[in-house]
Amino acid sequence: MKVDDKNLRPIWLDENLKTIKVIDQRLLPHEFIIVDLNNVDDVIMAIKDMYVRGAPLIGVTAAYGVYLAALNCPDNQTANGFLTKECDRIKSARPTAVNLAWAVDKVFSKIKKAKDRQEKIDAALKEACSIEEKEVENCRKIGEYGLALIDEISSKKKGETVNVLTHCNAGWLACVEYGTATAPIYAAFEADIDIHVWVDETRPLNQGSRLTAWELGKHGVKHTVITDNAGGHLMQHGMVDMVIVGTDRTTYTGDVANKIGTYLKALAARDNNIPFYTALPSSTFDWNLKDGIKEIPIEERDPDEVRFVQGLDHKIVRNVLVPPENSPAANFAFDVTPARLVTGFITERGVCKAAEADILRLFPEKRV
Amino acid sequence: MKVDDKNLRPIWLDENLKTIKVIDQRLLPHEFIIVDLNNVDDVIMAIKDMYVRGAPLIGVTAAYGVYLAALNCPDNQTANGFLTKECDRIKSARPTAVNLAWAVDKVFSKIKKAKDRQEKIDAALKEACSIEEKEVENCRKIGEYGLALIDEISSKKKGETVNVLTHCNAGWLACVEYGTATAPIYAAFEADIDIHVWVDETRPLNQGSRLTAWELGKHGVKHTVITDNAGGHLMQHGMVDMVIVGTDRTTYTGDVANKIGTYLKALAARDNNIPFYTALPSSTFDWNLKDGIKEIPIEERDPDEVRFVQGLDHKIVRNVLVPPENSPAANFAFDVTPARLVTGFITERGVCKAAEADILRLFPEKRV
Repeated sequence: MKVDDKNLRPIWLDENLKTIKVIDQRLLPHEFIIVDLNNVDDVIMAIKDMYVRGAPLIGVTAAYGVYLAALNCPDNQTANGFLTKECDRIKSARPTAVNLAWAVDKVFSKIKKAKDRQEKIDAALKEACSIEEKEVENCRKIGEYGLALIDEISSKKKGETVNVLTHCNAGWLACVEYGTATAPIYAAFEADIDIHVWVDETRPLNQGSRLTAWELGKHGVKHTVITDNAGGHLMQHGMVDMVIVGTDRTTYTGDVANKIGTYLKALAARDNNIPFYTALPSSTFDWNLKDGIKEIPIEERDPDEVRFVQGLDHKIVRNVLVPPENSPAANFAFDVTPARLVTGFITERGVCKAAEADILRLFPEKRV
Repeated sequence: MKVDDKNLRPIWLDENLKTIKVIDQRLLPHEFIIVDLNNVDDVIMAIKDMYVRGAPLIGVTAAYGVYLAALNCPDNQTANGFLTKECDRIKSARPTAVNLAWAVDKVFSKIKKAKDRQEKIDAALKEACSIEEKEVENCRKIGEYGLALIDEISSKKKGETVNVLTHCNAGWLACVEYGTATAPIYAAFEADIDIHVWVDETRPLNQGSRLTAWELGKHGVKHTVITDNAGGHLMQHGMVDMVIVGTDRTTYTGDVANKIGTYLKALAARDNNIPFYTALPSSTFDWNLKDGIKEIPIEERDPDEVRFVQGLDHKIVRNVLVPPENSPAANFAFDVTPARLVTGFITERGVCKAAEADILRLFPEKRV
């Protein structure tokens, strides 16, 4: 996507074919730093410490991680054993996003039968690139299908501004291009629909105010940053036409794991009869889980992410402590929105209800 | 209440009887500064800029503001004209808390008939002190009635920890002693009930993580700071037994205006069958308003309160900018929780349902 008139992705392979380049998303919007990932340890650190984040981008980064593992793989009988271990290490970097294991397994399945080291390397690179391009194409299609929904609201409002609320960052920074939740927004913007986005700041790490606001601003999309507390009030007063969020893992029954706080917005949307959509590529469906609240593992992260807030003061990025030094804090990173609160899913194959039968209508090959 | 073994209130009259002393709550927990209020302008600034906040404390501060106006009042025929203007200025400092106008009118009604300057001063001081002590007594009783509710949960849980979630600061810092939402918590603590408080940080101004956590910590009450996004997840997983919040204005029909985000917690409590209580002295009821969502004025404050976060960095309190410099922000300070989501009110006269008939059962003198 465009950043100051330059096309940019949050991840790319360096010309040397040995280094993965990523934007360090921890420092946006106040610092723009590109980081080199040269081996599996770098990849794990980048995922765990959230240089990269967002389910699709975690998947793509992990896929390139398997490629880096193949580059460092011994060419002997134990190669697959080595690669299995490296893949397991990558998969355990974070627990909630299902794309992580999905992407690693997808690349590994292509390379385990390869005859020698070079063939493994070639196969890994090919598959990682293919996963990346497939995510781009999926996001483009999500934008297309989501645009129809926004267009319908715009028509009903006779061209008045369409107000979309989003939580966290499910933008191109979380994917590769377009984003998931933002894909319909960018598509509507390109189609000259008058659109405005309420951006939940998304504590604790403020991916909304730091990343979504940055993305939208750089692209020229109208937006307003609000606290996570504000959405209910806006919905009560007719200031939100639609909610679109991303997801880190969605069960085949329609339960949506996404950034902590998503569930509260879904409750408010339901209470005010506002459509609540989740945009996702099929790689984010977990075809094995039935009950999201009981079964999706919810990551508990360092309480310091709650205690400290990062921002700019006199041109220096600082982390300031908000609560008293000795007050404990807890940091649950995700919550699960039950299917009953979700109006629908926007996928690369179209829009469906948050219900097993309708999900399988779009993805019939997943029927068991 | 106790702070490092010293008894403290957030407001008191100096020995010279000419100065009101208040804790500057904008700087807690990292700096503890006492500020002098010497005239009506100081009082308005302290209320508007939130040196003092919380409906009962705003009321008490405003009452002392009328006393300061009386001290500066000319002793002639225009005295009541002067005082009316000063009272109007104080009343317009903030729009949402009903205690502000209530307290100002109460003091003014006592002084307008006084014969001369000294009599007005004496009457104003007497009434302001009386309002202060009445709020203390009200909060003590709220604690008593709320304790019974917590005790019941503790018995059902056979003495296991009772987990209370609260939003913003409705503690003694927002009142004078005990607090409203915290009064039952302090009472339970004193009664040796095993109690733990989930403290919503309460963006944008973080009154939860800055003030409630500080209060509870100084008193020795177990607590954990969480993001405003986390409460729904905790409730889904059985980690919250009860929600208690304060309010800035509550209609006689039971609609509750409170810090922005309260409505979202009420929705989550209802969705998970968790009791949701509002603790309030009768001074916070607005006996004239019927429909809270339509009629209670919601203050929109400076967007910089959303854009900047205050905290400690290397022993210096700093304000750091979180979103991109040029991203707009909006700052709605309160929302309204409809009566249908409120389990009950804890008042100085007992517990009642959030419904006109039951509220008037406790306050029959308000029947028209």
